[in-house]
Amino acid sequence: MHVKARVERALRRHLNGRDKPYDLGEAMRYALFPGGARVRPSFALGVAMACGDDRPTVTDAVGAAVEFLHCASLVHDDLPCFDDAHERRGKPSVHARFGEATALLVGDGLIMLAFQTIADAAPAAGDRLGPILRIVSDSAGMPRGLVSGQAMESEEACMIPAYHAAKTGALFEAAAAGGAIAAGGDVEIWREVGAKLGEAYQIADDIHDRAGTNGALGKPTGQDERFGRPNSVDEHGLQGAVRVLKRLIAETVEAVPDNAEAASLRALIGAQTERFVPKDLVTAAA
Amino acid sequence: MHVKARVERALRRHLNGRDKPYDLGEAMRYALFPGGARVRPSFALGVAMACGDDRPTVTDAVGAAVEFLHCASLVHDDLPCFDDAHERRGKPSVHARFGEATALLVGDGLIMLAFQTIADAAPAAGDRLGPILRIVSDSAGMPRGLVSGQAMESEEACMIPAYHAAKTGALFEAAAAGGAIAAGGDVEIWREVGAKLGEAYQIADDIHDRAGTNGALGKPTGQDERFGRPNSVDEHGLQGAVRVLKRLIAETVEAVPDNAEAASLRALIGAQTERFVPKDLVTAAA
Repeated sequence: MHVKARVERALRRHLNGRDKPYDLGEAMRYALFPGGARVRPSFALGVAMACGDDRPTVTDAVGAAVEFLHCASLVHDDLPCFDDAHERRGKPSVHARFGEATALLVGDGLIMLAFQTIADAAPAAGDRLGPILRIVSDSAGMPRGLVSGQAMESEEACMIPAYHAAKTGALFEAAAAGGAIAAGGDVEIWREVGAKLGEAYQIADDIHDRAGTNGALGKPTGQDERFGRPNSVDEHGLQGAVRVLKRLIAETVEAVPDNAEAASLRALIGAQTERFVPKDLVTAAA
Repeated sequence: MHVKARVERALRRHLNGRDKPYDLGEAMRYALFPGGARVRPSFALGVAMACGDDRPTVTDAVGAAVEFLHCASLVHDDLPCFDDAHERRGKPSVHARFGEATALLVGDGLIMLAFQTIADAAPAAGDRLGPILRIVSDSAGMPRGLVSGQAMESEEACMIPAYHAAKTGALFEAAAAGGAIAAGGDVEIWREVGAKLGEAYQIADDIHDRAGTNGALGKPTGQDERFGRPNSVDEHGLQGAVRVLKRLIAETVEAVPDNAEAASLRALIGAQTERFVPKDLVTAAA
């Protein structure tokens, strides 16, 4: 089965029967489907497959949990008290469509669902459960996960590397290390691959925000300037940022250990990050 | 060590080092300390002690996790899109003091912290980890946990028993069953005690909302009427609700299995619920 299809199936399986009461369930499905590129769970599955994927239900649960946390952060990020974004993935954002109270609960419910999903995998996970829960919960929480990253956005003296590591890197690390743990692989090697990909992805996202086509990837551009948020293009310039991105992708691909599944994982890494960058920029920076 | 002191120590231990970045950490401590009655974690610890409490760090983690989830729900409940409550526990609510964006993140961060706390206990928990994660995550999530309960509040045709079971009962069940699992006790017996106590507690809360002194327990009264929320006093009348409460407390105390620790747990149950009811009502309904 294709990785993306496997991700969608896992998301539906773990949501199944939980999308209640009805109105909240509808809003939760709306927040999840159709999804974006599913970069994080695809990456988690790719890593697990590169490690043998001997417990596929555990792999699926890690991928789904990471995606649920990511989607939760998007729903809460879009709320009026943050970005006040009315569109997401080419349709009205969750609060624009269902109201703020429901959007708040959708985000909360998706966070809970991430951990219910890990609990679903507990019987198959055996002694891998504790390490999976450790990395996934830390990647979303404080002091160095997603929630801390969102808080750093509004700080006066925001340190860009720490901010990017928390806001984006941590969940990529969890996808990689979680995928590795699910399949009994080497956590530290894969955590490093995840950290590098997260860094690359954040720079790709920064470039898209400054130079991409508004709405082209299902999200508006120019948001960082609008909210005065740190963007690495300010530091490196546009061409410089593209060069940094290409270097990071090369390093990520390099960090993937050689084995039977490495080629497809490397292709996935390249494809997922480069689609963020306008083609003329890629050529110009070559 | 007194149960309440042990709860406070556990909350601080699991928060320790995670309350960053600084501003978010400050708001999170504000949301947690000083706390309310700590009913849920005290109950979790009481149950674990009645079951032998052979892995106290696991017991502490279950209690702290349940309290973190409870506090998260209070912070999000108080937001303008829900109750728009400006006070909580006799001081400004989190969003009134730190702004909506920070309050949203405090709630999210507390949810993550609940699961980071369970991860902290993983090495000591061994094969009890999966069942603990199962019950705690389900008690907070959908379709029958806290988040679903909050969503039911705004439904047209809200069924009171299902609403109360989700909004209040589930976390009490998780406190009881989680405390039992942490100590290797019988899950089903204690889940039943927790469900009954949750039901009693919800009715006590309803009575306080209708007949209590505004602010006496650190929360305003008259909220259910203000928001058109279901309140069991409408169904039973005030005296009737007090009678139901007394019956439920008696049943809860009855359901506690006899052993060395049963007496103190029974006393805790009585004290925690009866303080909600104005004294003249207790006498009148006797």
